[in-house]
Amino acid sequence: MINEKNLQLLRDILGREHLLTEPEELACYSFDGSGGDVPPQAVAFPKTSAQVAGILQLANTHKFPVVPRGAGSGMTGGAVPTCGGLVLGTNRMNEILEIDQENMIAIAEPGVITGELQAELAQKGLMYPPDPASLKFCTLGGNAAECAGGPSAVKYGVTRDYIIGCEAVLPTGAIITTGVRTEKGVTGYDLTHLLIGSEGTLAVFTKLILRLLPLPEAKKTFLLLFDSIEQAVDLVAKLLAEGIMPCTLEYMDQTALRIISDRLPTPLPEATRALLLLELDGSRKEVRHQSQRLHTFLRNRPLTLLEAKNDAEREELWLARRAISPATFALKPHKISEDVVVPRSKIPDLVRLTTKLARDLALTILTFGHAGDGNIHVNIMLDKNNPEEYSRGREAKKQLFEEVMKLGGTLSGEHGIGTTKAPFLPLEITPATMSLMQDIKRLFDPNNILNPGKIFPQ
Amino acid sequence: MINEKNLQLLRDILGREHLLTEPEELACYSFDGSGGDVPPQAVAFPKTSAQVAGILQLANTHKFPVVPRGAGSGMTGGAVPTCGGLVLGTNRMNEILEIDQENMIAIAEPGVITGELQAELAQKGLMYPPDPASLKFCTLGGNAAECAGGPSAVKYGVTRDYIIGCEAVLPTGAIITTGVRTEKGVTGYDLTHLLIGSEGTLAVFTKLILRLLPLPEAKKTFLLLFDSIEQAVDLVAKLLAEGIMPCTLEYMDQTALRIISDRLPTPLPEATRALLLLELDGSRKEVRHQSQRLHTFLRNRPLTLLEAKNDAEREELWLARRAISPATFALKPHKISEDVVVPRSKIPDLVRLTTKLARDLALTILTFGHAGDGNIHVNIMLDKNNPEEYSRGREAKKQLFEEVMKLGGTLSGEHGIGTTKAPFLPLEITPATMSLMQDIKRLFDPNNILNPGKIFPQ
Repeated sequence: MINEKNLQLLRDILGREHLLTEPEELACYSFDGSGGDVPPQAVAFPKTSAQVAGILQLANTHKFPVVPRGAGSGMTGGAVPTCGGLVLGTNRMNEILEIDQENMIAIAEPGVITGELQAELAQKGLMYPPDPASLKFCTLGGNAAECAGGPSAVKYGVTRDYIIGCEAVLPTGAIITTGVRTEKGVTGYDLTHLLIGSEGTLAVFTKLILRLLPLPEAKKTFLLLFDSIEQAVDLVAKLLAEGIMPCTLEYMDQTALRIISDRLPTPLPEATRALLLLELDGSRKEVRHQSQRLHTFLRNRPLTLLEAKNDAEREELWLARRAISPATFALKPHKISEDVVVPRSKIPDLVRLTTKLARDLALTILTFGHAGDGNIHVNIMLDKNNPEEYSRGREAKKQLFEEVMKLGGTLSGEHGIGTTKAPFLPLEITPATMSLMQDIKRLFDPNNILNPGKIFPQ
Repeated sequence: MINEKNLQLLRDILGREHLLTEPEELACYSFDGSGGDVPPQAVAFPKTSAQVAGILQLANTHKFPVVPRGAGSGMTGGAVPTCGGLVLGTNRMNEILEIDQENMIAIAEPGVITGELQAELAQKGLMYPPDPASLKFCTLGGNAAECAGGPSAVKYGVTRDYIIGCEAVLPTGAIITTGVRTEKGVTGYDLTHLLIGSEGTLAVFTKLILRLLPLPEAKKTFLLLFDSIEQAVDLVAKLLAEGIMPCTLEYMDQTALRIISDRLPTPLPEATRALLLLELDGSRKEVRHQSQRLHTFLRNRPLTLLEAKNDAEREELWLARRAISPATFALKPHKISEDVVVPRSKIPDLVRLTTKLARDLALTILTFGHAGDGNIHVNIMLDKNNPEEYSRGREAKKQLFEEVMKLGGTLSGEHGIGTTKAPFLPLEITPATMSLMQDIKRLFDPNNILNPGKIFPQ
């Protein structure tokens, strides 16, 4: 735990105004997108790698926990203290250090907000594809720690596909640099990828080197309505096999559709049981060409196709997708929100499972998410203040994870494990593999000061 | 070292016919694509993960070296023994275990030949993109160990972008499973990527889970001839910024062109100083559309464009590229062949540097390779039996690496470090980072039995 002397030393490293210690300030750092209620003892806002190194050295010597935090928008408790200690907020390390247009590379500090980088890049005709739902406030560092995804992953991949190198500080205070600032590189062990998705348990990112793409010139949006979930999933597989590669391929199940139906500008046909939101991007000509291919492909298939003719109509089609999250809370005050992945072809099995779980356990469960890559957001709605209902919700989560394993899936596509899924890790990771992961944790962090209590079952 | 009793135990594990011990057999395993001349004491061909585990347990107990080997086509000594011991050939673990067409996933053993997998997949309309020059004989396991690339990397990426999980055996004999068989996944540490490119020093792959793409329906090939290397490189940057994404974008410098000129069916124009081989792939319509865009883009630019109208003409255009490697040996009996990467915009600087090195050190140096990603093959031609010339060659290599670092580049894009680049690793990797990599090696392999003498300076 941090004592008064440690606080003084932290103030010496950071300057007084970059350390919070008042209880009402600390309360803001006791939770993330998944909830939480353990406040830290202090919150530090370093400005430089050297300050981060100083903080970690101090923590390592005096053995107090350090919890790295970006915007706190994570969904699995990654940025929430488990036993007090210091929250290390990267928010004041928020400079875009370089945009190399010619080589399509950017270098940025971890506190840069993902959407702000994207806006800056768009002005130069460039794109950093990862687009988590929280992109207007989440940070690059948090995205790297969790290996964030988003709707565009179906075409463009996730955070790990765009971070090619970094500077990071180890729990001992050593500053390492990993990876390259070139398109290719295989020089020593791939520490970059080891750190990405390690949920702030191995090192603190202080600089990120990002690979960029040219910004697509145009985008076209479609809404596809189906009479059954099987038809929707079958279409997704055929579409991708055909080589039509949308940059968005989001789906919603019947329960999700039911709860948003009264929030839509135009009512959906009565028989709609599943919906796909599909977008194409590229040069204007390419998008026109791909749209023609899509129309040809969809002809004579049993579905209703709506097409956005302009930005206003595009916005209207997105309303359906965006309405889900707020709408869920009209059902119940809380939810257990999971981001499991199954092989794409198994999505109907997963939806059948959630329907069965909802019936068996008398819960409302809805699914939506990224149909193109099988990454489905399962929302189990409940009232945590009703212990009996909460217990049924937890039972649904447990059965969900067990079945996802049987379907050849994984516990998390883009949210990570954190604390909320840690007890379930042994369902997916074998003892030998888990033991190796824990050895790596001990190697990096012998005193277990960096984000303790995360990923591994306690 | 392996004693007679160890050999007997190895025969017990493998069966007599899967262990080679005759000197003339062992000689074939004393080198790879980079040369080498240290034969192993024995060569084992396990068939199962359990046998690999048995071999490694034995080696770990009796502390003899084990050198994993695919086809031995590596370019940096990765599969060459440094101090005898056992070569573990994966060639008899060569089954394609599963091709899941619907989810575009394959599972294969490490000894599967990359080109054979690709041919098998092509019949099902699928593609595994990594295409090292050796694809007709190299293996998936070797590709994974080195993170192999190839011409298609400019559009499709390298091996690390397509291996999403694996089974591997640790030096202690423990069998681990990493990653997922879904498109996304972030569950525990990314051991898959830690193992890819670790050059057989951390574990032996026994199964690989591969992500596949739909096979493009069509391909179109162009040859672009320029009066200067700067024009060629400038065009590459503008082309990619335009969003035209070739699946091949290979370049050759003037020296490379000179040596192949008499092997081409049609002579190149006198003024040609650089050449780009460019291919577009996709659906037939897409390729037609992209070709039109390319023509529009190239109009009024100072270059000569040749276009393959059919397969025979395509083959003719590829002759130029394929002729280089054999042609180099008409110049000198040996070469130092490096695969450095620089930021794309720095290719002209790199070519100027090699021209200067060639002049200053009285050597013939030619460059060719992957212009789209800045991964340039620098061939320093020499006669190793001429000690003075060999010494100048080594000096050129040293200066090349030093300058590549100044240009923001990396030592290796796709060949790895092995033994041939190990002394130069400190040019790129800082002491703190190297120390962490070596700690990881010790954690995985406390007795240093697995591929000792590789990657790190000795």
